This record gives sequence, C-alpha cells and structure tokens, in this order.
Amino acid sequence: MGVKPVGERVLIEIKMAEEKTSGGLVIPQTAQEKTQEGKVVAVGTSDSIKVKVGDKVIFDKYAGTQFKIGDKDHLIIKAEEILAILD
Amino acid sequence: MGVKPVGERVLIEIKMAEEKTSGGLVIPQTAQEKTQEGKVVAVGTSDSIKVKVGDKVIFDKYAGTQFKIGDKDHLIIKAEEILAILD
Amino acid sequence: MGVKPVGERVLIEIKMAEEKTSGGLVIPQTAQEKTQEGKVVAVGTSDSIKVKVGDKVIFDKYAGTQFKIGDKDHLIIKAEEILAILD
Amino acid sequence: MGVKPVGERVLIEIKMAEEKTSGGLVIPQTAQEKTQEGKVVAVGTSDSIKVKVGDKVIFDKYAGTQFKIGDKDHLIIKAEEILAILD
Amino acid sequence: MGVKPVGERVLIEIKMAEEKTSGGLVIPQTAQEKTQEGKVVAVGTSDSIKVKVGDKVIFDKYAGTQFKIGDKDHLIIKAEEILAILD
Amino acid sequence: MGVKPVGERVLIEIKMAEEKTSGGLVIPQTAQEKTQEGKVVAVGTSDSIKVKVGDKVIFDKYAGTQFKIGDKDHLIIKAEEILAILD
Amino acid sequence: MGVKPVGERVLIEIKMAEEKTSGGLVIPQTAQEKTQEGKVVAVGTSDSIKVKVGDKVIFDKYAGTQFKIGDKDHLIIKAEEILAILD
Repeated sequence: MGVKPVGERVLIEIKMAEEKTSGGLVIPQTAQEKTQEGKVVAVGTSDSIKVKVGDKVIFDKYAGTQFKIGDKDHLIIKAEEILAILD
Repeated sequence: MGVKPVGERVLIEIKMAEEKTSGGLVIPQTAQEKTQEGKVVAVGTSDSIKVKVGDKVIFDKYAGTQFKIGDKDHLIIKAEEILAILD
Repeated sequence: MGVKPVGERVLIEIKMAEEKTSGGLVIPQTAQEKTQEGKVVAVGTSDSIKVKVGDKVIFDKYAGTQFKIGDKDHLIIKAEEILAILD
Repeated sequence: MGVKPVGERVLIEIKMAEEKTSGGLVIPQTAQEKTQEGKVVAVGTSDSIKVKVGDKVIFDKYAGTQFKIGDKDHLIIKAEEILAILD
Repeated sequence: MGVKPVGERVLIEIKMAEEKTSGGLVIPQTAQEKTQEGKVVAVGTSDSIKVKVGDKVIFDKYAGTQFKIGDKDHLIIKAEEILAILD
Repeated sequence: MGVKPVGERVLIEIKMAEEKTSGGLVIPQTAQEKTQEGKVVAVGTSDSIKVKVGDKVIFDKYAGTQFKIGDKDHLIIKAEEILAILD
Repeated sequence: MGVKPVGERVLIEIKMAEEKTSGGLVIPQTAQEKTQEGKVVAVGTSDSIKVKVGDKVIFDKYAGTQFKIGDKDHLIIKAEEILAILD
C-alpha cells in the first residue's frame, strides 16, 4: 500500500537529525536551522515536477505538511517549493 | 437524500482516529498530527477533479469546512487541496 | 418588492437551527458547527451561477454578508462560495 | 455643484436608520446589522456599472469610503461591491 | 522647480480644513471624516489618468503618501485611487 | 568598483536631512515626514525604468532596502516605487 | 558532492561580517544593516536568472532560506530577489 501525491506534489521522507549524507556533506540539523534534508519517495503526475524518486533534496523547515508513516516523518510538499537537489 | 459538492469541491467522510487502513498502513491521528485521513463520498461536476468516490485520501487538518451528517464528521474541500491518495 | 442580488451573487434564506430537512438528513446547527444550511430565494444575472431558486444549500458560516428581511435571517453570498447542494 | 465618482465607482446617499422603504420592506438598521441601505445618486463612467441613478441598493456596512455632504451621510463604493438592488 | 509624478501618479495639494469650495459645497473635515479634499497640481505621463491639473478631487484619508512643499500639505496618489471629482 | 542594480531596480543616494535642493524647493525631512529625497546613481537593465542617473527623486520612507556605502545611506528600490522626479 | 538550486533559485555563500571586498568597497555588516553581501556559488536551470557563478551580490537580510554547509552560512534565494551585483 502506498501514498500517491496529488498533482504537482511530492512525498519526502525526512532525514533524521543524526544521519549524515553519503558524500560527506554535513548539513547540521540543529533547532536553529531553517532547512531540512530528505529523500523523494513518490511524485505526483504533473509534468512540471523537476525532481525524481531517490533524489536527496533540501526544503524550508516550514514548507508543506508533515505526518508520520509508521514512525518515520514524512512531508507532502509542492515540487516548486523544493529548494535544491543534493548530488 | 444526498449532499452534492459544488464545482471543484469534494465531500469526504473523515476517518475516526481509532480506525486502521485495510492495507495495514497506520497513520497515527494524535493531536500533534497535521493531516487527517478520509474517504471521498461525493465529487463536484468539475473536470479538474482527480479523485473519485471511494478513494482514501489525506488532507491538511485545517483545509476545507467540516460539519456532521448524523454523527459522522465530514469535510467539504476543494479537490486541489487533497494532498495524496492512499492505494 | 424584492431583493435582486447583483452579478454572481445569490440571496439565501438561512434555515433556523431547530428546523429539519424534509428528507430526514439532520445537519446539527450547534455553536460548534462551521456550516449553515439555507434555501436559495433569488439569484443574480451571471451565467456562472450553478444553483437555482429553491435549492437547499450549505455554506460556510462566515461567508457572505447577513441581514434580516422582517425577522428572517438572510445571506447574500457569491455563488462560488456555496459548498454543496442538498437533494 | 456635484460629486462625480471616478471610473467604476458610484455615489450613494445612505438611508437613515429610521427611514422605511416605500414598498414596505423593512431592513432593520440596528448596530448588529452588517448591511446598510441607500440610494444611488451618481455613477462613474465605466461600462461595467450595473446600477443606475435612483436605484435603492444594499451594501456591506464596511465597504467603500463614507463622508458627509452637508449633514447627509454618503458613500463612494465600487459598483461591484453593491450586494443587491431593491425593487 | 517642480515635482513631476511618475507613471500613473498625480500630485495633489490638500485643502486645509477651514477652506470652503467655491460652489458652496461643504465637505466637513473633522477628525471623524474618512475623506479629504484637494486640488490636482501635477499629473504623471500615463494615459490611464482621468483627472487633469486644476480638478478638485476627494480621496481616502489614508491613500497615497503625504509630504510638505514649503508649509503646504501635498499628496502623491495613484490616479485610480481618487474617489470623485467635484465640479 | 560599483553597485549594479538588478532588473528594474535603481540605486539611490539618500539626501541628508540638512541638505537643500539647488532650486530652492525645501522638502523638510522631520521625523514626521513619510517621504525622503535622493539622487539616482545607478539603474538596472529593464526597459521599464523611467528615471535616469542624476535624477532627483522622492520615494516613500519605507520603500526598498537601505544600506550604507562607506558612510552614505543608499537605497535599492524598484523603479515603479519612485513617487516623483524633482526638476 | 554539490547543492543544485531548483528552477530559478541560486545558492549564495554569505560573506562574513569582518571580510572586505577586494575593490575596497566597504559595506558594513552591523546589526542595523538590512542587506548582506555574498557570492553566487550555484545557479538553477531557469533562463530568467541574470546572475552567474562568481558574481558578488547583495540581498535583503530576510530574503530566502539560510543554512550551513559545514561551518559556512549559505542562502538559497530566488534570482529575482537579488538586489544588485557588485563589480
């Protein structure tokens, strides 16, 4: 069973604060930070979406709507609100 | 007698907090959660609506207008405000 | 003498809290409810209006502008703000 | 000497609370009311204006800009903000 | 040396509270009033401007930006914000 | 080394309060004033800009973003926010 | 590993307060200042972006979203929010 974002939305699994990116880039997740990092796990059907499943992305901490699937924090966000892709 | 949403609106029956989705996905409905889950029970006449009767959907807790039909919580929401479909 | 709504507005007679719809559907009108029910009694001249005189409708409690004709509560509302038709 | 509304604006003489409409319709003007009644006394040059001089109209109490001509309350309002015509 | 309003703006000399219009129309300027009267003294280059130098106009007390030239109160306002012309 | 405004922005050197315009026009700069005077020192590349380097202009005190170059107050403002040109 | 801004966004490394621009222009970075200076280190894919990697730019202190890469402050900002280029 899955969660399919509607239209130009994407579903992101939010990276926990203690994780580290594979490439060694460390984006600290202290309470003062205004961004969060995550991984795209599903995308909507809109052609305007410029990210794909598997992309690591950063986004504004207060963008979109957060909820849990099991015990993992997820986020539904409009694709245009994603700030940058980490590659 | 029925409730027919106008234009691009849809009518959703809100899932009670203690229910569980058939597929085993558990989206907890604590007071801290910012989303709710429900089932589409009627759709308006607009061609732009991308969900259909029977779809299980999640939506922002504060989107749309809630009211009761009998003792069940319902929501009228614009279709574009639905965040994702559960399938 | 009558009240003719301008443009895409409609005039609604608001149902009193103690009334019941003919079909048996009960939409409670407690102070906590965010919707109200009423009957369309006049419509403006705009082609975009999708309700007609006599339709029973629900609308957001805080939409439009309310006033009394005699001792009955009425509402002038833009047609697109009507949430649903009861049939 | 006169007051000529600019563009799509109209000039309305606001009915005093104690007046009554000629047709017997009584729209009470208590402090709780959110609408006021008045008579159109001048219109701007825009083709989009759908009321004419002499029309009795109702409007939202807080729409437009009020001022006095002599001791009579007047209102300059955009024509599209007029809620309904009384006929 | 002069002040040339930019684009669709006009420059207005604000009438002092104690002045009277030549035609005898008295628009009181008490603290409670929400409009002010003035005279257009310069207009911008936009074709959309419907007032001309010399026009007596009324405008919302809080529209535009006020400043003094010498000891006289002036106002720069977009032409579309002028409510009415006095003639 | 210079500061090149981007797009339709212009760079203005803000006139100190004690200065006087060459033509004798005095626009007082007390704390109560809502406008300030300045001189355009650079313009962006947009064709829509209607002022040029050297123009003396007035602008709303709270428009744009101020900063210092050396000890002189400067302002970056969108050209359309300039109220008037002094000539 | 890099940070690729999405769409019309650019990535800026924010200049520390004690640094000085090579050309001798000093833009003080006191707490009172409303602008900050930085260097463009990556740009999105949009054709509308008018700055390039390496450009020194100033921007409103409160524009965009800040975060750290390692111990350096960075900013993701829409290109149109950049106020000026220093050259």
